Amino acid sequence: MTQSPVVDLPKSVDVVNVGLPLFEQAVRDQGHAVIGVDWRIPAGGDTELVAALSRLSGPYAERVDAANAEVVRRLNEGVPLLVGVRTAGEAVPGMGGRTVLHSGPGITWDRMPDPLRRSVQATVVAEGWAPDVAAAAALVEAGEVELRPANEHRTVVPMATSIGPSAPVYEVRNEAAGLTTYSSLNQGSGQVPWFGVDSDEAIDRLRFVRDHLGPVLAEAVEAHGPVDVLALAAQGVPMGDDVHMRVQATTNLFLRDLLPYLVRSAHPSAADAATFLSANHLMFLNVAMAAAKSLTEWAGEVAESSIVTTMARNGTDYGIRLAGAGRDWFLAPSPPIQDALYYPGYGPETSAPDIGDSAVLELIGLGGPAAANSPAVAGFLGGRMADAIAATRSMQRICVGESPRFRLPILDNVGTPVGVDVRRVVESGVTPAVNTGIVHVSDGVGQVGAGVAWAPVECFAAALLDLDRRLAGGTRTAG
Amino acid sequence: MTQSPVVDLPKSVDVVNVGLPLFEQAVRDQGHAVIGVDWRIPAGGDTELVAALSRLSGPYAERVDAANAEVVRRLNEGVPLLVGVRTAGEAVPGMGGRTVLHSGPGITWDRMPDPLRRSVQATVVAEGWAPDVAAAAALVEAGEVELRPANEHRTVVPMATSIGPSAPVYEVRNEAAGLTTYSSLNQGSGQVPWFGVDSDEAIDRLRFVRDHLGPVLAEAVEAHGPVDVLALAAQGVPMGDDVHMRVQATTNLFLRDLLPYLVRSAHPSAADAATFLSANHLMFLNVAMAAAKSLTEWAGEVAESSIVTTMARNGTDYGIRLAGAGRDWFLAPSPPIQDALYYPGYGPETSAPDIGDSAVLELIGLGGPAAANSPAVAGFLGGRMADAIAATRSMQRICVGESPRFRLPILDNVGTPVGVDVRRVVESGVTPAVNTGIVHVSDGVGQVGAGVAWAPVECFAAALLDLDRRLAGGTRTAG
Repeated sequence: MTQSPVVDLPKSVDVVNVGLPLFEQAVRDQGHAVIGVDWRIPAGGDTELVAALSRLSGPYAERVDAANAEVVRRLNEGVPLLVGVRTAGEAVPGMGGRTVLHSGPGITWDRMPDPLRRSVQATVVAEGWAPDVAAAAALVEAGEVELRPANEHRTVVPMATSIGPSAPVYEVRNEAAGLTTYSSLNQGSGQVPWFGVDSDEAIDRLRFVRDHLGPVLAEAVEAHGPVDVLALAAQGVPMGDDVHMRVQATTNLFLRDLLPYLVRSAHPSAADAATFLSANHLMFLNVAMAAAKSLTEWAGEVAESSIVTTMARNGTDYGIRLAGAGRDWFLAPSPPIQDALYYPGYGPETSAPDIGDSAVLELIGLGGPAAANSPAVAGFLGGRMADAIAATRSMQRICVGESPRFRLPILDNVGTPVGVDVRRVVESGVTPAVNTGIVHVSDGVGQVGAGVAWAPVECFAAALLDLDRRLAGGTRTAG
Repeated sequence: MTQSPVVDLPKSVDVVNVGLPLFEQAVRDQGHAVIGVDWRIPAGGDTELVAALSRLSGPYAERVDAANAEVVRRLNEGVPLLVGVRTAGEAVPGMGGRTVLHSGPGITWDRMPDPLRRSVQATVVAEGWAPDVAAAAALVEAGEVELRPANEHRTVVPMATSIGPSAPVYEVRNEAAGLTTYSSLNQGSGQVPWFGVDSDEAIDRLRFVRDHLGPVLAEAVEAHGPVDVLALAAQGVPMGDDVHMRVQATTNLFLRDLLPYLVRSAHPSAADAATFLSANHLMFLNVAMAAAKSLTEWAGEVAESSIVTTMARNGTDYGIRLAGAGRDWFLAPSPPIQDALYYPGYGPETSAPDIGDSAVLELIGLGGPAAANSPAVAGFLGGRMADAIAATRSMQRICVGESPRFRLPILDNVGTPVGVDVRRVVESGVTPAVNTGIVHVSDGVGQVGAGVAWAPVECFAAALLDLDRRLAGGTRTAG
């Protein structure tokens, strides 16, 4: 079997209960001290999974562990640099013609959830391919627009973001890997397509990002020179950012770096871009995502690993990919967001399932793994830092390494957990905690809340079985 | 006697030791659990102090507690707004002729420590009153420059800062109090007079602040409109700022607010000011100090209080003032900084004693009181958050209230302690912990480290005796 999860034991104790919490509570109710160990039957007792787990943690363990060590090295040692801002059409491979990139695994128009459809419609109108959203929908239905998962174009986009060829993207270079990755520019708050809104105002926001924000940022980044993205993120974590749900501190560090170049800019849109930047505390989210993607793409080239290097949702499907599994996705239905705070008047019944590529951050030690030090994330988990620490602890159970750059002061500067191992996930039944926003399920009003979503275990189980078959020399099966 | 300090007791314990830690350690060495209560003989057993304490906590307690409640209300409820940047000569009352304001209590030139002398010399040269620092010293020695404590002009300045009439100052308005307070602009790092440097480069920095930074900030603040200073600080605390030693997060929030106005500026110095601002993570320190001063000045008008409303050091004397004690200072020698980290090649022997007015922040719940949530401050206290929490706990022992706006996520969002009560200080022997920088004692190289300084108990004892005499209707005695 795989290694046991780490449990911190106190110095003395009356009762230790392993397994069902019912017994634990009974002891507690009688006024006795008790420690509950969250033990479950490995892999839920599924005999096929248990057999695969036994091989992957037994005869195949040495090969898998060696591969995993290299994956963790790449996730921890890559230095992604923001080198520019260009249009997706110029920069991203395979963006010819009427291509639209979207979040999550590949999906056909008929299966796309409402927020993602609206986002695509807004993009088609902003690209000038259709005069309005109804015409945009017709154009897509007629097969005149190629819908592609951003993840398969070295690109990641948050929430329901979609991008056409004219959209500006961050270019992040991972020199050691010899590869460049991309992310869209953050669209800000309010009426915005990345939250599933396709109103005229939302479409205007795409035009603003393209015509004003993009060119000004391109000029500022060029004048500044390469930005060490994760050096900023490493400063942001002790400042309360998980650098996913909360990126306020890191956004501000980034803007202070760009300040001299923004002030020196002679671009006619500089002032409007500055007003937008001043009001958007999420600006750095997409920069961090592109950087994370540059690490996971590199790590994904390592064969025979049990570590997850893609984790993305299109609002219908939750998909993961393993390092060494090529382009094979392992899918499960996108889950609801479990621990959430909603805007007044909204709740679970008005919420779309989990959506977006931002979970790439959870794969490099940010987001859920960095929750422990984030008061803002704690606010979604009950309000106490102990709740946020529990989210990090759950990631520690399923990760094989830790980050040397993202450190948690509240846990005596331990590195955040890195390297989600499907063996640990399937054995424990604990899946990654992903900090995320929530958008309306159907009426296009945009964001209705935020919370923490736990990934569905089924895609991890499928990936584990596929890895087991590959190591046995068997046929590969995509999920 | 006064109320006991708050001690958090655990649910069960073997041994409680009160007093000498020797016994506590002996029990611990034998492998038993023990709780140490840091109890000392009240007021060190000084009979005069014990008698005064007995009156102030007995027959006079009702009057004092009522006054203190009003002091704490003013410290917690005032809303200081940054309304402008003007020159000290235009804005600060009593800045006619060749006046120079300096940190700490009033002091004559012959008693000024080396760093403060150098700072004054740099100011005199920058004002154009002398061609070089030697001539500046001669001018001051000849009595041609009036040296005045900034604190007596509704102004506070950090470290060894001094300002002449041409220096720009922040204007902070406390509308409820009907008063305006001031602070200098932060001079940044390197060769700077506020760290006791009087080189040509340091004097040039004063000219840059006056001729370039000040006018650009004046324009940006004017365009922005009033800035709610402590609303920014309240956001900075959960982001790891104590808003004294560490003001990185709050500085960045402030700059992001000003960003649109800096980018829109047509001022010829805007670009150079932006470069300076981009490199100075301490910029907000002085803004926060002016805001704190606007609260302590207001609170200082309350009669018969035992709460400290001025705490300032000139590098020779440590001075405090009580609310209701008018202009009377109570003095003790400036102490060394105890818990410190030094730049390579420096140590206690090359360090000037504690200096500056920034301890005003500790009186409103920032600095030491907010240490618990600051990883940066923890770095100066041993590196663990537990060390930083201990600094906040020590302030809780001597404060009578807590801040409703500055909250500590790491302590389940408790408010930071506010209202340093001389009764508690004298009874416990615990004095305020002040987070501060350290400058060279004599050779003008500037900053050599940073650390935490504990105030000397003697000035608190003198203030307590004076309060006791005043409440008895006796003669007032200044320290």
